[in-house]
Amino acid sequence: MNEFVKTFTPAEAPWSIEEFSDRMRAVGPERYHDLHPFHKLLHGGKLDKNQVAAWALNRYCYQEAIPRKDAAFMSRVHDRDLRREWIHRIQDHDGTPPEEEGGIERWLILTDCLGFDRQYVTSMQGALPATRFAVEAYVRFVVEQPLVVAAASSLTELFAPSIHRERIAGMLASYDFVNDRVMAYFKRRLSQAPRDANFTFEFVKQNARTREQQEACVEAIRFKCNVLWAQLDALQHAYVEGNIPPGAWRP
Amino acid sequence: MNEFVKTFTPAEAPWSIEEFSDRMRAVGPERYHDLHPFHKLLHGGKLDKNQVAAWALNRYCYQEAIPRKDAAFMSRVHDRDLRREWIHRIQDHDGTPPEEEGGIERWLILTDCLGFDRQYVTSMQGALPATRFAVEAYVRFVVEQPLVVAAASSLTELFAPSIHRERIAGMLASYDFVNDRVMAYFKRRLSQAPRDANFTFEFVKQNARTREQQEACVEAIRFKCNVLWAQLDALQHAYVEGNIPPGAWRP
Repeated sequence: MNEFVKTFTPAEAPWSIEEFSDRMRAVGPERYHDLHPFHKLLHGGKLDKNQVAAWALNRYCYQEAIPRKDAAFMSRVHDRDLRREWIHRIQDHDGTPPEEEGGIERWLILTDCLGFDRQYVTSMQGALPATRFAVEAYVRFVVEQPLVVAAASSLTELFAPSIHRERIAGMLASYDFVNDRVMAYFKRRLSQAPRDANFTFEFVKQNARTREQQEACVEAIRFKCNVLWAQLDALQHAYVEGNIPPGAWRP
Repeated sequence: MNEFVKTFTPAEAPWSIEEFSDRMRAVGPERYHDLHPFHKLLHGGKLDKNQVAAWALNRYCYQEAIPRKDAAFMSRVHDRDLRREWIHRIQDHDGTPPEEEGGIERWLILTDCLGFDRQYVTSMQGALPATRFAVEAYVRFVVEQPLVVAAASSLTELFAPSIHRERIAGMLASYDFVNDRVMAYFKRRLSQAPRDANFTFEFVKQNARTREQQEACVEAIRFKCNVLWAQLDALQHAYVEGNIPPGAWRP
């Protein structure tokens, strides 16, 4: 018998919707970045202003990538209703002038307050290379993966509201350079993230129909957690442990 | 002397803005699809209802691709102001319910009136394969080319208002199954296309700085004309000359 002819094994049955939901939700407690040491330092008031500044400077790269990521997703969607549902995610970040400034603008208010020149922030020249590699890997993932898997990668938003609540409270209490105006980004996300996450959660549950697709969706949430975790690893290594790489911002 | 070492030739100087503009505008009279025989038949009232229907059914694929193309463009743009300017193009086509139905909906009113089931139109199952190949080549072009060249490919809009005016007048006069309601798509484009084309024309003139980039932008407009022309070639071959390929809609 030809060694390349394997015995046919039928595909495993898909999980029930409940089991699939549970497995996706289980990724949060397993590896969402609220478990990262840098997160604990940040929210516990254990960082100095320069370390918070490094976090804000680097996380700008992530904010900057989100509308490109969502546009990349939309560029693959043939269903007009789905595009119509998705488009507000771009607008949430880019804003709809003149009324609504958008999330990136709110982020820049945070970096203003931390003493950065906007030109420097938006140039991303001072960001850690590892930040940009992680962020662009996310954009590429959404370009390249099957659509339902690409959508699933945004489901870290299921876990975001609790981290944002904790962040707002912890940072307001701990840092005298942080005020309500500066925390505006996270306050807004408290309402935006659950709306988006709920829609996507339903979309993924309905559209991942085989066990293989379901597993890929759970894996996509892990991948996205990795993208977030890697950013905090890089910050910790550079700005807590003091190994700032060549070219990156030096306080 | 190593045969692969060529004598260094300096790059040619860029064209003046005036010459660059003239060269881009010159592509229209040279090969825009208003020169195509099928266009002349369509607007001159020389087609029967089935042939007009075949045109509308196939052109739906092009309409359907435009918002994906614009989202693909946006997915590559790091400049928030440019994304904010570009996003209305997606909304012009997808609509902003409940107020604004959008261009694709207006196109489906045209296909309704021509007797098609919407499900059939949006499935694109009856469209000519050549239509879909041409349209997807446009989306890929915008994904893959340098940004200024990708933008330039939309500059066939410089030539669109005259064709739309001619189309509205010609079709209303020639076909008793066409009325104002059905021509709503083109009426709306009379104001949308010049606004978009003017913005992009300025953007391309300012951002194509070397002769090589300028030449690539002129070539991008030719490429886009080819995308439009190929669609009419396929329609003519199938529905005027009677060579309907397997699987395509048969009246």
